[in-house]
Amino acid sequence: MDVSRFERDTAVEPIADGRYAGAIDPGWAVIDGAAPNGGYLMALAARAMRDPVPAHPDPVTLTAHFLAPPTVGEVEIAVEVLRSGRRHSTVEATLSQAGEAKVRLLGAFGDLAAAEGPSRVDRRPPELPPLASCVDFTTEHERRAEAGGFPPPPIAQRFDHRMPSAVLGWTEGAPSGRGHIGGYLRWRDGSEMDTLGLLVVADCYPPAIFDAALGDIGWVPTIELTVQVRARPSPGYLAGWFTTEAVTDGYLEEDGEVWDASGQLVVLSRQLALASRPRR
Amino acid sequence: MDVSRFERDTAVEPIADGRYAGAIDPGWAVIDGAAPNGGYLMALAARAMRDPVPAHPDPVTLTAHFLAPPTVGEVEIAVEVLRSGRRHSTVEATLSQAGEAKVRLLGAFGDLAAAEGPSRVDRRPPELPPLASCVDFTTEHERRAEAGGFPPPPIAQRFDHRMPSAVLGWTEGAPSGRGHIGGYLRWRDGSEMDTLGLLVVADCYPPAIFDAALGDIGWVPTIELTVQVRARPSPGYLAGWFTTEAVTDGYLEEDGEVWDASGQLVVLSRQLALASRPRR
Repeated sequence: MDVSRFERDTAVEPIADGRYAGAIDPGWAVIDGAAPNGGYLMALAARAMRDPVPAHPDPVTLTAHFLAPPTVGEVEIAVEVLRSGRRHSTVEATLSQAGEAKVRLLGAFGDLAAAEGPSRVDRRPPELPPLASCVDFTTEHERRAEAGGFPPPPIAQRFDHRMPSAVLGWTEGAPSGRGHIGGYLRWRDGSEMDTLGLLVVADCYPPAIFDAALGDIGWVPTIELTVQVRARPSPGYLAGWFTTEAVTDGYLEEDGEVWDASGQLVVLSRQLALASRPRR
Repeated sequence: MDVSRFERDTAVEPIADGRYAGAIDPGWAVIDGAAPNGGYLMALAARAMRDPVPAHPDPVTLTAHFLAPPTVGEVEIAVEVLRSGRRHSTVEATLSQAGEAKVRLLGAFGDLAAAEGPSRVDRRPPELPPLASCVDFTTEHERRAEAGGFPPPPIAQRFDHRMPSAVLGWTEGAPSGRGHIGGYLRWRDGSEMDTLGLLVVADCYPPAIFDAALGDIGWVPTIELTVQVRARPSPGYLAGWFTTEAVTDGYLEEDGEVWDASGQLVVLSRQLALASRPRR
């Protein structure tokens, strides 16, 4: 069976009791040659975290704190199962490079295929225009790069992104002022999305604050990201919607919802990040 | 100087390097004689977590995973500072009783009095009726208890709660169906609210799902609670608003916003909990 790009780039290997080896691939960077995407780091760590709890393969809630900037290359992931119950296992992990902790994670893993209980969803999927009238973000970005613009970041090339033009004004200096971003998306290599892949989806868009008309914003480092995964996604395009609605003294949340092609809510995410003014 | 009830009941004492002793007071239970409130446990642990990082007294984002039900009485809190930077310290803690881990926490602490950066809040405080037309929840609960109803849970007695009657229909078998709860609140003993107290506020209401008209819901155990504290609160009543908008196979989020009397957003919170049907 073919191994997808995502599976290959998040593969981990046990090297000792509670310790796993993996590698950060350059193809998931936010900036070419630097800054691996936070959601990708979570997925890489989560693959190790779920290994000792095979009855609980799905991260129902996973929190990551980003301690230091990781670089491309080898990582070690130390995993500790704090509690293993009937319905959930609570697992902690540290992703390190050369002995330095880069990401600390704490999460509860379960089996979403076996989940049962009441259901009622008052949230609604984002109102996106039809797929055919969305901008093919990555291809468009590549086209602009050929014309002398910035190349699309590697992380954007992992997805087939179709975005409404209404959320892309900021790329031409005309943000909407609402602090929204989103669109349809799936893996660009056509492979199936799973609940680890959703961790990347929860962090894969440019910061919603770029659409907020707050003036120049430079780097938006994530302090903490928590992703609730609610269901295993159906095949087809996902619809993602991310909003920043409270920027206070530089602190901001980015709230995300991701829906699958069958209309199921599959992710609720929230991060705390810092908006910094660009360095002159 | 007087010590407030909250300060007294969350006091911790260093007992060894990175270890603190404290005690769970019965006055913060969700059910009389059992189930200490999750936000109270977070505040108790957070007081120990911030002790080794005096330059960073405010929990800017704190996540707790509830591993096993704690009981009233002595606790030990083991604290590890994972990273201490200029702006934030990342701290982990385990709250244990008799050697058993009950709550695991991971958070970033900072100094909100020194925070600076862009600000813009598109969220709005809840539209509450004037204070004078709200129900004095705790007093009303006590009155009903005298008439043979359930007594107010101890945690409700720690607050001066003023709630719009529109969010209290569920107490008389008539939920609104929206999954909302909130109101004005402050410490009942009149003491000042601080950023540790806000951790309790973020978890102090009855579950919003009780207002959702989903039929009988029994216990709503929290799996994970993350609280972002955005500012040190001004004196006066806070306004809290909590909503549950996506119940999927028993999993539910409860999102909270807390605003202070000056109109500042002071808390954004989200928890993942499980809605269970009552046992017959």
